[in-house]
Amino acid sequence: MDRSEQTDRAGTFLDLHHAPEILVLPNVWDPLGARLLEELGFPAVATASAAVAFSLGYDDGQRIRVSTMVEVVRRIAGAVSVPVTADLEAGYAVEPETVAANVREVLRAGAVGINLEDSVTEGGELHAIELQCARIRAVRAMAVEEDVPLVINARTDVFLRKEGGPRAARVTEAIERGHAYVEAGADCFYPITVGDLPTLTEIRAAVGGPLNVLATVSAASAPELEAAGVARLSFGPGLIRASITAMKNAVESLRRTGSYESFTRGTLTSDEIRAWVRDTPEP
Amino acid sequence: MDRSEQTDRAGTFLDLHHAPEILVLPNVWDPLGARLLEELGFPAVATASAAVAFSLGYDDGQRIRVSTMVEVVRRIAGAVSVPVTADLEAGYAVEPETVAANVREVLRAGAVGINLEDSVTEGGELHAIELQCARIRAVRAMAVEEDVPLVINARTDVFLRKEGGPRAARVTEAIERGHAYVEAGADCFYPITVGDLPTLTEIRAAVGGPLNVLATVSAASAPELEAAGVARLSFGPGLIRASITAMKNAVESLRRTGSYESFTRGTLTSDEIRAWVRDTPEP
Repeated sequence: MDRSEQTDRAGTFLDLHHAPEILVLPNVWDPLGARLLEELGFPAVATASAAVAFSLGYDDGQRIRVSTMVEVVRRIAGAVSVPVTADLEAGYAVEPETVAANVREVLRAGAVGINLEDSVTEGGELHAIELQCARIRAVRAMAVEEDVPLVINARTDVFLRKEGGPRAARVTEAIERGHAYVEAGADCFYPITVGDLPTLTEIRAAVGGPLNVLATVSAASAPELEAAGVARLSFGPGLIRASITAMKNAVESLRRTGSYESFTRGTLTSDEIRAWVRDTPEP
Repeated sequence: MDRSEQTDRAGTFLDLHHAPEILVLPNVWDPLGARLLEELGFPAVATASAAVAFSLGYDDGQRIRVSTMVEVVRRIAGAVSVPVTADLEAGYAVEPETVAANVREVLRAGAVGINLEDSVTEGGELHAIELQCARIRAVRAMAVEEDVPLVINARTDVFLRKEGGPRAARVTEAIERGHAYVEAGADCFYPITVGDLPTLTEIRAAVGGPLNVLATVSAASAPELEAAGVARLSFGPGLIRASITAMKNAVESLRRTGSYESFTRGTLTSDEIRAWVRDTPEP
């Protein structure tokens, strides 16, 4: 991707965090999903690391190679004209310079945003605040070097931690981390699993930057979140769950009835899908 | 993949073409889809070239690079323990030796079966029978060299050709081609779009080898095809149509209602999907 085009996409993506409308990101894992969202008018596309890993036959949690994730991001960013943000888990490294080097590859693959978590391992300990801030600062410095206003969505896993103490203490820690991450250069703060309006309102007021909410069964609805000033809403592996469930249902219906209706009736046709993809040869 | 393991998978796959039960292949395009089918007890997994191309943001018709298709097949074959057969369109070449070289890469990536079409371009002219037989012979000779009993599913596009004359003449040509392709070394014959029992019975009796049928709206049901002695049933892009439609419906429902139910209610959980995939690092 041309660098000025990428800078434009990054600026557009950052602006979407400061618009009155909530930025809705039903995360995808391949170019076709990205094209679907673009066709439906979504102004940006996000990946979900779990969805990318699952689709390739691996569990989430930095099990696929960084180079594999970079190639997936490259294909997705090359398939759409809207900004693409990549979920990079914990940066596939501990050391700030290594994290920044990994994010540089993803940026050069065409992404204009990233998610970066503070878990050492999901559900377990978190990086010390100072280390996580150093990781964010290193990524920001790299993006400045590359001259792309990369949108950094800093996720805290305070609420995922199994040994994390009572909720009030977690809210306090989340606020401390959110404030520090924004100071270190994050553009958005993501206290994953927090979806209730009182806690979100408290965190938002204290952190002072845009918030990302994960759509869960217990989270407030999209209109409620928008009214509360939440900047963006993402779905993690929600879409891949819907997709693989539809595939399972189609196959089980075939087995039960011998009929092909679940593959053909009420589904998009091949020609409709074809209209969303390129008819030129892969370079 | 270990060569003796691959030879075993190829033998198992060939046997499935001669079993009383019809071999049902709801074609997939990624490792997760392949794992889904394996978990549901399917004895083999097939790719659909259109689904692979669509998922990567390209139209079908040999637009993606051979090397890209080889990598997709490698990931799928490495993710399951059942035989994997790869849809290779027209072999990504015209000359028999180049087709055989391309198929060699796919075989070395772990596939134990292939689809090979006789179209020059889909809907247009077909390769002359003698050339298509030479292409099949070259693939068979390569597989003998590699010492893997590769299962060749030879597809004729007689019924896809726009300028193809009346149906009776097409049936005659299909029979001629099917007979010649089996003589040249094909294990299965695939007269794509033929799904009615009288024509299938006529072709089967004349060709003398296993037949592959595409599941279309107008095709006979799976139990009817099995009773008529059809060996295998495939779905082309049927599953990706079901998948992308479910994704579109989920996103549109979200927009309409602001609720996340379509991503979470009645869908497989992340933990259920996680149980199907590897928790080891990608090598």
